[in-house]
Amino acid sequence: MSADHADEPRIMLAHGGGGVMMQELIGGLILRHLGNPTLNRLEDAAVLAPCSSRLAFTTDAFVVKPIFFRGGDIGRLAVCGAVNDLAAVGAEPLALSLSLVIEEGLPISVLDRVLQSVAATAAEARVQVVTGDTKVVERGAADGLFLITAGLGAVCDGVHLSPAEVRPGDAVIATGTLGDHGIAIISQRSGLEFESPVQSDVAPLGGLVEHLFAPRSPVRTPHSALRTAVHCMRDPTRGGTAAVLNEIAAAAKVEIEIEESLLPVRPEVAGACDMLGFDPLYVPNEGRLIIFCAEDAAASLVERLRSHPLAAGAVRIGSVKKGARACPEHSRRGRVVLRTRVGGTRIVAAPYGEQLPRIC
Amino acid sequence: MSADHADEPRIMLAHGGGGVMMQELIGGLILRHLGNPTLNRLEDAAVLAPCSSRLAFTTDAFVVKPIFFRGGDIGRLAVCGAVNDLAAVGAEPLALSLSLVIEEGLPISVLDRVLQSVAATAAEARVQVVTGDTKVVERGAADGLFLITAGLGAVCDGVHLSPAEVRPGDAVIATGTLGDHGIAIISQRSGLEFESPVQSDVAPLGGLVEHLFAPRSPVRTPHSALRTAVHCMRDPTRGGTAAVLNEIAAAAKVEIEIEESLLPVRPEVAGACDMLGFDPLYVPNEGRLIIFCAEDAAASLVERLRSHPLAAGAVRIGSVKKGARACPEHSRRGRVVLRTRVGGTRIVAAPYGEQLPRIC
Repeated sequence: MSADHADEPRIMLAHGGGGVMMQELIGGLILRHLGNPTLNRLEDAAVLAPCSSRLAFTTDAFVVKPIFFRGGDIGRLAVCGAVNDLAAVGAEPLALSLSLVIEEGLPISVLDRVLQSVAATAAEARVQVVTGDTKVVERGAADGLFLITAGLGAVCDGVHLSPAEVRPGDAVIATGTLGDHGIAIISQRSGLEFESPVQSDVAPLGGLVEHLFAPRSPVRTPHSALRTAVHCMRDPTRGGTAAVLNEIAAAAKVEIEIEESLLPVRPEVAGACDMLGFDPLYVPNEGRLIIFCAEDAAASLVERLRSHPLAAGAVRIGSVKKGARACPEHSRRGRVVLRTRVGGTRIVAAPYGEQLPRIC
Repeated sequence: MSADHADEPRIMLAHGGGGVMMQELIGGLILRHLGNPTLNRLEDAAVLAPCSSRLAFTTDAFVVKPIFFRGGDIGRLAVCGAVNDLAAVGAEPLALSLSLVIEEGLPISVLDRVLQSVAATAAEARVQVVTGDTKVVERGAADGLFLITAGLGAVCDGVHLSPAEVRPGDAVIATGTLGDHGIAIISQRSGLEFESPVQSDVAPLGGLVEHLFAPRSPVRTPHSALRTAVHCMRDPTRGGTAAVLNEIAAAAKVEIEIEESLLPVRPEVAGACDMLGFDPLYVPNEGRLIIFCAEDAAASLVERLRSHPLAAGAVRIGSVKKGARACPEHSRRGRVVLRTRVGGTRIVAAPYGEQLPRIC
């Protein structure tokens, strides 16, 4: 960082002091990128209209390293993280908050680029940053830049997503290829060069939720049936798809069976995983959903997903096993089983500790 | 930190990895302190009931050093920061989010103590943490522990607080002594010892807002008149009261005059300020409000404030000058004037840069 940005204006402790310099940073840089009538007021809290839908509320901290990576950056990640957590409960985003924790010495041009990306991604997600905070800590007290977003959303009427809704017989669907984000970060961090470098899949999925549950088309569609047919959604970030499947198996007390031959993994991701000793099931995405839905709606859900650009690669990857609740062991904590290409089965354990630090 | 906690269990990178160890940290420590039916679901986002009031939304990052200080700690500060930002727009808290950014090696007992304080303060503020996130970064990449809260609130009906509502002739009221929090931190950090050590004023002010605008007493009270008589409130954190007054003077394009003889400053804070070269007007609080209200309601507002334990020391400190809008200079950016004890006046400038790094 330092070599590339010699003699550049940098963030100083004084930029976080609550005085004129902080006002200049906020007015000159933050509002230039993120400004909107609500944020521009710079009140202690943003005041928003009442909401007649159920509210969704989420937060995530982003400490990804490096800040800029193939297919995205910490700014895009911070917006998508909040928007996708809202999407996973069937909510469209209403508003975002953004907190910055900045290490003294960060080149202002880096912050500028990150804020530009926050703005572009928020526009893509059709949501605004309405409130925020900026803290500056001394050199060595933080690593460059951390972003923390919170998201407020409106849950689509008639949609009730929860592991408790997952039923034996449900289909398990992935909206796209697995592991892209994690491999993009780790290959860049380890200096690996591939013929076709892996891009992060980071993308905001609020529009996909609207596409599934609340189509605005004036033509009558059968998609409103999806509001009850879809039982649970999760975005497979840290711990990857294996973590999501295990959490849901445990919460719903079911056995989930996935088919190795159905798992959508890019050849370059599979190759990198082979080289680095990772299993793509444990590698994070930042623009995918794992969806549980009623068996009889699975085909139409996959079709509907594929008609959206962010789920064009949607495929069914498995099922919740029927009768699994009868087994005392599974009824206690559930489990995830992989049916391998050669016809065997193996347990997909929940990830234990840290595979990939600072991946998001 | 390290010497005090030798051989203790510590946070490892694996505690942030999305796997079993993170689940154990969340289930074993975080839910033990903060658990409630919504948070316990551990969904990607919390789902809350619709809200027929206007919504308030805020966020703050906390990087205070030291983590534990006289009168509070980073956990209490993080809850109060969100609750008080909501209070400043006249909102009662509905829900909080909590993000943790933890440096590898933090003793788990420290996290335990901080979470206990978050829980106690949230209970005091009658609000719950309903969603959260935990990130662990490697040694040296963060300084111990950062907390980031977001707050969702319901704005009291009939209350419209904004600098735009401030009028010439309005009274300016402080709800208690100025500068306590900042002096508590800085005296502890600089190793100063006083005969009567200064305690931080950090406290959650949601109950005070309810006391002002929505008394639950079955007896009819005149306090509903305060809903329109109070024009603007701010909590004087970074930059202190001087920053708040200057921001409001600039936004409302008025001249604000405060009286040195009326400023409520504890003798021990005044003494520490003298010794350290600070002006108490620039030193942060974390449990006070600066309130602008209609002149004819000022006396009853002060009386009402004093009947609440968190505003027992409320006093009027000045006025918005009449006719100030007529002056071209003030109508452009406003200003703050201090009438000194000896009868002179001086400008209270907006703070420029950093007086007190990592004060909150």
